[in-house]
Amino acid sequence: MKICVLGGDGYCGWATALYLSKKGHSVSVVDNFMRRQWDHELGVQTLTPIQPLSDRLKVWREITGETIELFVGDVTDHDFLASTIETFQPDAVIHFAEQRAAPYSMIDRKHAVFTQVNNVVGTLNLLFALKELAPDCHLIKLGTMGEYGTPNIDIEEGYITIEHNGRKDVLPYPKQPGSFYHLSKVHDSHNMMFACKIWKLRATDLNQGVVYGTVTNEVELDEALVNRFDYDEVFGTVLNRFCAQAATGHPLTVYGSGGQTRGFLDIRDTVRCIEIACLNPAAPGECRVFNQFTEQFSVLELAHMVQTAARKMGLIVDIDHLPDPRVEAEEHYYNAKHSKLIDLGLSPHYLSDSLLDSLMNIAIKYRDRVDPSLFLPQVQWRNARNERRQALSSAAAVSLTEGAF
Amino acid sequence: MKICVLGGDGYCGWATALYLSKKGHSVSVVDNFMRRQWDHELGVQTLTPIQPLSDRLKVWREITGETIELFVGDVTDHDFLASTIETFQPDAVIHFAEQRAAPYSMIDRKHAVFTQVNNVVGTLNLLFALKELAPDCHLIKLGTMGEYGTPNIDIEEGYITIEHNGRKDVLPYPKQPGSFYHLSKVHDSHNMMFACKIWKLRATDLNQGVVYGTVTNEVELDEALVNRFDYDEVFGTVLNRFCAQAATGHPLTVYGSGGQTRGFLDIRDTVRCIEIACLNPAAPGECRVFNQFTEQFSVLELAHMVQTAARKMGLIVDIDHLPDPRVEAEEHYYNAKHSKLIDLGLSPHYLSDSLLDSLMNIAIKYRDRVDPSLFLPQVQWRNARNERRQALSSAAAVSLTEGAF
Repeated sequence: MKICVLGGDGYCGWATALYLSKKGHSVSVVDNFMRRQWDHELGVQTLTPIQPLSDRLKVWREITGETIELFVGDVTDHDFLASTIETFQPDAVIHFAEQRAAPYSMIDRKHAVFTQVNNVVGTLNLLFALKELAPDCHLIKLGTMGEYGTPNIDIEEGYITIEHNGRKDVLPYPKQPGSFYHLSKVHDSHNMMFACKIWKLRATDLNQGVVYGTVTNEVELDEALVNRFDYDEVFGTVLNRFCAQAATGHPLTVYGSGGQTRGFLDIRDTVRCIEIACLNPAAPGECRVFNQFTEQFSVLELAHMVQTAARKMGLIVDIDHLPDPRVEAEEHYYNAKHSKLIDLGLSPHYLSDSLLDSLMNIAIKYRDRVDPSLFLPQVQWRNARNERRQALSSAAAVSLTEGAF
Repeated sequence: MKICVLGGDGYCGWATALYLSKKGHSVSVVDNFMRRQWDHELGVQTLTPIQPLSDRLKVWREITGETIELFVGDVTDHDFLASTIETFQPDAVIHFAEQRAAPYSMIDRKHAVFTQVNNVVGTLNLLFALKELAPDCHLIKLGTMGEYGTPNIDIEEGYITIEHNGRKDVLPYPKQPGSFYHLSKVHDSHNMMFACKIWKLRATDLNQGVVYGTVTNEVELDEALVNRFDYDEVFGTVLNRFCAQAATGHPLTVYGSGGQTRGFLDIRDTVRCIEIACLNPAAPGECRVFNQFTEQFSVLELAHMVQTAARKMGLIVDIDHLPDPRVEAEEHYYNAKHSKLIDLGLSPHYLSDSLLDSLMNIAIKYRDRVDPSLFLPQVQWRNARNERRQALSSAAAVSLTEGAF
């Protein structure tokens, strides 16, 4: 298939592009390197030393003989996006090209507005480009499990049958997102459902859980292909952060009681889920939703698992309960369905001891690159404005002081 | 109370500003005159000859002795909006300042993107300005009944109790909006619920039905205070358009079978609902939703009512069933709850024969100003791009040709 990966230089996008290329698909990557720009803005770096995209693609070609075509530009620039779709004529477009960090969207008004405009306009542009230039192309869009929030009933996959006052209908599952970022994905989902209805587009909305891990069969072919491993308080996902903390002897930072339960998955399952969606396209006019995760954990459970894995390696790590910077239930019911991708053939990589060991090993391998001042949450949901740079300086100062004793 | 009316030069905003001023509140109006700009863009005019806002406000002061303060600017300009909130220190903000026409949002990609960015960013700016500068101020935001679509179950007011697999929760009512405009209101609703949750803001989301009428006690005090009466295919609401068609001997343009059923209300009830919301503010942290309409009608029922009212005046009008330019169910279940505003004291003005007569009389009074080429729908939901100007020219050409014979 001809598959276009929007945001193919990012964490999930890069792993996906290589996986699909290896599987023999004709893959193109669209990226504007904004994800790298945000690292500069925030003063953070991925734990793993990722290479420039041009180098990555060159090494990929040398090793595998496969060429991944590159289109450099911004999906919010409709002329660019439309010309890319027209040139490449994809059978499927995988849309990862959004701002994906909840804390980033909560820094202040400008970051909230940027996140929503960037994500919503990019997706609107894509919907219009597909309608006009590739109406049979299958849109595979990354949503998030965070769109649902934590309702007190089971979470279904996108839609729910509601019986009410003696009548019945199947309706979009009610959404209670927990950040301006998560809200942007809810907006996208509504826009997509409508576009599929009026224009008979084909779409799959993948409500993905929290992804962990960095190694896939493809990226481990060469050090130059290494994928991101974000551990900072803004872009770092929780399991990666815990591993980086354990590897450097810092306490694991659990927000509140740690009873927050979410869906998680291995990045090797992310790439396989995308392939499954490609190979089983939605019907014209269909906007289907898959919940893309494999296991549920509470944050405290994960902390204990990392603590145990670290102890095996001789690392004694504490668990710190910090005041929750987010506004969220710290204890709640959570039971989210996730059978549709399994039904289509996903064989999950569950979070085993051996995987945790390998995650810890990566964190240990690169631990000299860790900046511990990035562990502590500096973006508070209850503030309209987080002076992150000031907080960063004072946190660094504290850390230095502590280090002196 | 000190009440700030965003979008106070528009149809609902103007009537509301005068009503609240007459009731003794200290009222300010914020507007950037974009609504007047869209008339120029589309080549249309309100049936009624509205005056410049500065003249309107001057006449209002001369007649009533009441001063309405004016802030000229755009709510998507945060510096402007924040300085307005800071200067005026309102007890309540009524937010009408959005692009409000579904067909306008469906013209093409630029109009869709404009509508969503304009509406979402304006509301985000307002939420941040209130949090930072007036956290106790009550936000009264205009939503639309169109957020709900036409589900096969009863429509509740914003939230629904769902029992599912033996558990129960009260969740946001599922939304199935029918245009990029209606989607923008759904996005706003989600953003507002979240902001109330994290920042303890007070908000009322008024899901308003289709408004008809132009006369209120205040605007009829002087011809210079006359309110808009939009009848064109883009901004005209259906009952106003039918009256303009009947007054000029044109057939009433029903889309499809006309079984589309919606909630309607008199503009005199709009202004009273706003006052009721002001006088009964939401609690801190509460984002409550009222369905703001008084009666349900199908489009065909309205056409028949106008036909009957016209016949009494000696006007014989036909009903044309045009192919529906929208993608919507032409026959469907519809039962929307609307008791909360009644419970708080609303006494509705129902659509009686006498009101229809008065609407017809306005249409007849100004019928020389009607441009019949504006009646026919030129924005097709199934197109990604509607060349409205070309269609307009050819429609005008047809009209001229017909006139010659």
